[in-house]
Amino acid sequence: MSYDIAVIEGDGIGPEVIDAVRPLIERTADGYGFGIETTNYGWGSERYLEEGAMMPEDGLDRLADHDAILLGAVGHPDVPDHVALHGLLLPIRKGFDQRICKRPSVLFEGIESPLRGYSGGEIDFVVFRENTEGEYADVGGREHRGEDHEVAVQTAVFTREATETIVRTAFEAAAEREGHLTNITKSNAQAYSMVFWDEVVAEVSEEYPTVAVERLLVDAASMDLVRRPEEFDVLVASNLFGDVLTDLGAIVSGSLGLAASANLASGDEPSMFEPVHGSAPDIVGQGVANPLATVLSTALLFDYLGESAASDRLWEVVREQLADPNAPRTPDVGGEAGTEDVVADLADRL
Amino acid sequence: MSYDIAVIEGDGIGPEVIDAVRPLIERTADGYGFGIETTNYGWGSERYLEEGAMMPEDGLDRLADHDAILLGAVGHPDVPDHVALHGLLLPIRKGFDQRICKRPSVLFEGIESPLRGYSGGEIDFVVFRENTEGEYADVGGREHRGEDHEVAVQTAVFTREATETIVRTAFEAAAEREGHLTNITKSNAQAYSMVFWDEVVAEVSEEYPTVAVERLLVDAASMDLVRRPEEFDVLVASNLFGDVLTDLGAIVSGSLGLAASANLASGDEPSMFEPVHGSAPDIVGQGVANPLATVLSTALLFDYLGESAASDRLWEVVREQLADPNAPRTPDVGGEAGTEDVVADLADRL
Ligand SMILES: CC(C)[C@H](C(=O)O)[C@@H](O)C(=O)O
Ligand SMILES: CC(C)[C@H](C(=O)O)[C@@H](O)C(=O)O
Repeated sequence: MSYDIAVIEGDGIGPEVIDAVRPLIERTADGYGFGIETTNYGWGSERYLEEGAMMPEDGLDRLADHDAILLGAVGHPDVPDHVALHGLLLPIRKGFDQRICKRPSVLFEGIESPLRGYSGGEIDFVVFRENTEGEYADVGGREHRGEDHEVAVQTAVFTREATETIVRTAFEAAAEREGHLTNITKSNAQAYSMVFWDEVVAEVSEEYPTVAVERLLVDAASMDLVRRPEEFDVLVASNLFGDVLTDLGAIVSGSLGLAASANLASGDEPSMFEPVHGSAPDIVGQGVANPLATVLSTALLFDYLGESAASDRLWEVVREQLADPNAPRTPDVGGEAGTEDVVADLADRL
Repeated sequence: MSYDIAVIEGDGIGPEVIDAVRPLIERTADGYGFGIETTNYGWGSERYLEEGAMMPEDGLDRLADHDAILLGAVGHPDVPDHVALHGLLLPIRKGFDQRICKRPSVLFEGIESPLRGYSGGEIDFVVFRENTEGEYADVGGREHRGEDHEVAVQTAVFTREATETIVRTAFEAAAEREGHLTNITKSNAQAYSMVFWDEVVAEVSEEYPTVAVERLLVDAASMDLVRRPEEFDVLVASNLFGDVLTDLGAIVSGSLGLAASANLASGDEPSMFEPVHGSAPDIVGQGVANPLATVLSTALLFDYLGESAASDRLWEVVREQLADPNAPRTPDVGGEAGTEDVVADLADRL
């Protein structure tokens, strides 16, 4: 068995991290009796600066036949963010109907949380974030540009189809975990989108009688991720709220450098796996970026391919490494080692 | 000099906290040579449950002639949140053009932050939140209700007028504080509203050459309020982002029970002062609600009335009380005292 993976190294630390992790990916696959073939797409902000587009016009078509996509990072100081993201990351999530964004938050043994009194093993939840619409819909405009009475509007769009998909996926996950789902909304202020969302949750919940549903407003939820992160099991949220809550989840679990994510397609198109961190222009080229978020994103990729033994093994070696006080670690988690050292140590443990 | 204050005790712990704090308000005013007359409006969810409306139809007219409004809390388990809030709190903020929501986050001496390594005095920032439009605009709808192809839309509305008001106010504050403004957006995903917002910030910034502007995406900002809260001075954000960030600000500063807020009118209509916390149905009637958020909201009110000596004094006695290990404190900040005890102790210190 061999899988055909599209790799988009992207911007900033993306290329150096992917380059470091690639041999580990191949070695893990080898060890578990499958092959990984990768095709590199050199898309990103450099391409934009030279050719005026983040990816070619037929970019999605070229990705479509791969079994999955691994993405490094997107974002560049010389390219406006909305250009970079609407030119590459967001069209893939939307174009391939990657409705489900799954982001685990785990405080590993050996990692210090910025929260007082939490130690390894005590935080372990997963956020399911709607990934293709909501507050990220490309709907809106501006009128009377530059005038005193200018107005800008931005419309969030929620379809029942996408909403039911993410909500049902979260219930499935909760049923398999601790049976506890937290539904995040802001229905007190957003009486159309969020009241609709709450209704969908109420409907779907009838199919999952064993799952207890808690409802939290996004402001209270942000606070509670700081105040009582250990009480969460599965959270479900819209695109924007999921964005905020997963960054919070990453920081209370120690570092954005450890946060992995899966963008799962609802149909036949490929899913995409990427670290939650961005392109980190401040540390580009120093060789100190934490590769673990990309390693764990690969673990999510393996799991998606059905190679769960290989996936589990990657989680295991990361766990082992972080728990080992003598193992190399990057500066974001309190060490002084480089990207390559961390990957080499993982390879030894495999 | 005597001021005429409208008091809306509202729901849940609102009445018990306001009742406890009221004598302190009068006493402070007395001590500084001005009078406070209060008129009670018994509006809120109980009224809704009996009469079908949170406030009378001419509610805003009745409030309009007061010098300011003091609000307890809004929210009731038997009333849907969007009904309670759209029936009372939000119409006042909008109807009186209270465009500026000002929320200080201070980690007081004697208060333990949930963040490792922070102690009293180390966190001190203020968020200026747009308060009348943005993501809270009452614009949207649902089509194909209940069908598979149902769609719900919610439109955020940003006017240049309101955006410039909040941005300019934040720059003014930054110029008077440490000269450091953090502009929160999500321009990488919301290319209409947030790109507009960034443009307004860039324009207004030219009037304030001494203020350094940092730009942060809301997801990164949420993380940074946990990772490096000490580095913030003044933040400016939209209605929704301000909502999330001020709850985060409250929790990293120890407790929502200490967080005060001012809703400042841009024109002649009255401003409103309220604690950031909600109606807290779980502790209603137990007499243990923390009154300090309401006391500090009163301090913001005094300041707004031009009674800055009285305002300063209230901040001072709260600071003193919290720094005193023998002073009574409520359970949310690690004590066992009741609302009344805390207020009585403050009165003694005055
Ligand atoms: C880069 C940005 C558009 C993206 C998002 O908001 O989804 C990122 O923050 C993420 O969480 O993957
Ligand atoms: C109650 C709710 C509508 C309100 C808001 O979102 O503004 C509250 O959370 C606040 O922060 O004052």
